Amino acid sequence: MITLSLVGIGSGNPDHLTLQAIKTLEGADLILLPRKGDEKTELADLRRDIVAGVLKTAPSVVEFDYPVRDAKTPKYLDGVNTWHDALASIWGGLIAEHAKPNANVALMVWGDPSLYDSTLRIADRLIAQGLDIKVEVVPGITSLQMLTAAHGIPLNDLGAPVVITTGRQLRENGWPDGTNAVAVMLDGECSFKHIDQEGIDIWWGGYVGMPQQILKAGPLAKVGADIIRTRAEARELNGWIMDIYLLRKRA
Amino acid sequence: MITLSLVGIGSGNPDHLTLQAIKTLEGADLILLPRKGDEKTELADLRRDIVAGVLKTAPSVVEFDYPVRDAKTPKYLDGVNTWHDALASIWGGLIAEHAKPNANVALMVWGDPSLYDSTLRIADRLIAQGLDIKVEVVPGITSLQMLTAAHGIPLNDLGAPVVITTGRQLRENGWPDGTNAVAVMLDGECSFKHIDQEGIDIWWGGYVGMPQQILKAGPLAKVGADIIRTRAEARELNGWIMDIYLLRKRA
Repeated sequence: MITLSLVGIGSGNPDHLTLQAIKTLEGADLILLPRKGDEKTELADLRRDIVAGVLKTAPSVVEFDYPVRDAKTPKYLDGVNTWHDALASIWGGLIAEHAKPNANVALMVWGDPSLYDSTLRIADRLIAQGLDIKVEVVPGITSLQMLTAAHGIPLNDLGAPVVITTGRQLRENGWPDGTNAVAVMLDGECSFKHIDQEGIDIWWGGYVGMPQQILKAGPLAKVGADIIRTRAEARELNGWIMDIYLLRKRA
Repeated sequence: MITLSLVGIGSGNPDHLTLQAIKTLEGADLILLPRKGDEKTELADLRRDIVAGVLKTAPSVVEFDYPVRDAKTPKYLDGVNTWHDALASIWGGLIAEHAKPNANVALMVWGDPSLYDSTLRIADRLIAQGLDIKVEVVPGITSLQMLTAAHGIPLNDLGAPVVITTGRQLRENGWPDGTNAVAVMLDGECSFKHIDQEGIDIWWGGYVGMPQQILKAGPLAKVGADIIRTRAEARELNGWIMDIYLLRKRA
């Protein structure tokens, strides 16, 4: 049986790695290393830096290209599911070609494999296809944790709930009921501009945890436009951006 | 100016430490180490194990006792706030007594300082009292991440939101609107028994990430009673328990 370890590597800095992540990667017989194809080569480079600069062993590494997700598929989730199928085929092929029986295979996952990440769903497809595979998860620091750490703020108010959601959800469904705190991930469109700005504070971060980290915070009505402009400029400058934010209603 | 680093240490295993956490602790001039007073001596022991077994330097360590929170204070939040005031006094006194000017002082925080943790609020009290102090946060792996990793499940459904909340909130306000996934922390009472059990799956964990980890999962209507019994027995056996769970409504 193949062991496939999905290893969270944190959010842009080898120092985010846990000892458990390092030990798992060092114990791997094979590491599958995604190249992100289009932009974000820095993310692939981070994975290469970890292998070359942090691990004390030299596991065999096989790089692979990401298939391109068809953003034109009418239903968003259909497009994502087709894309996951394609990725599962790639992983299955690489494991069949490169992994010996009972090999430990590892994949480095940006952030934590449990939070807005597809690798667990892709691994499930391999199991569904009948591959004799055991999946292990090693958690990693998420960009949401880097955001709150960088701003020096708690995620939740004392004893209060927090909603973690996507830009799409915020645009389509508005402010979630029953919470004063909303963390937004996967938002390419500054979706905070679609909600009522009054009485809301924002803590925003681009490239959190990375050398080019940018932080902005304040009343949404006051700093929202600055964030939109800053984000566009940074994306232009770097060729890509990953950003995240926390919104909180004032009492 | 004193730098006070709040260092997330993960959830029960020195291997959860990040390299950033280790470097911050190794660079500390003084580590304030809480003894949890009542039960949970294993948690204080973990902190001592980290200092003795993981760090390559030997920072000065000062242990202190937790004040007892008065659970009889009529309003829950009043009791917590009084308790935070008492802790801020203790920290301030220890820093004044033991930290040289410009010292790096560190506190090891269970999980991540941003999630259902009080250290950031206590540190804010020191600043409000006029202490010349800069607060830095180093994120750590939370018990919620250990839970999803141990079960090998994502926290959120594809593109869907997730609510993180407390046992108290679940008991008093029921299932949150607008989400199919609810993670429950700080629940000493198996509050899932107060909601409608039908159509809900639970992934439960006690002592997640620790040697005595216990996992249970299944339809809530089927496994809920077993979890309540298992939790009570484990608490009796170990003298304490920390548990956490994810609830998800079936589509």
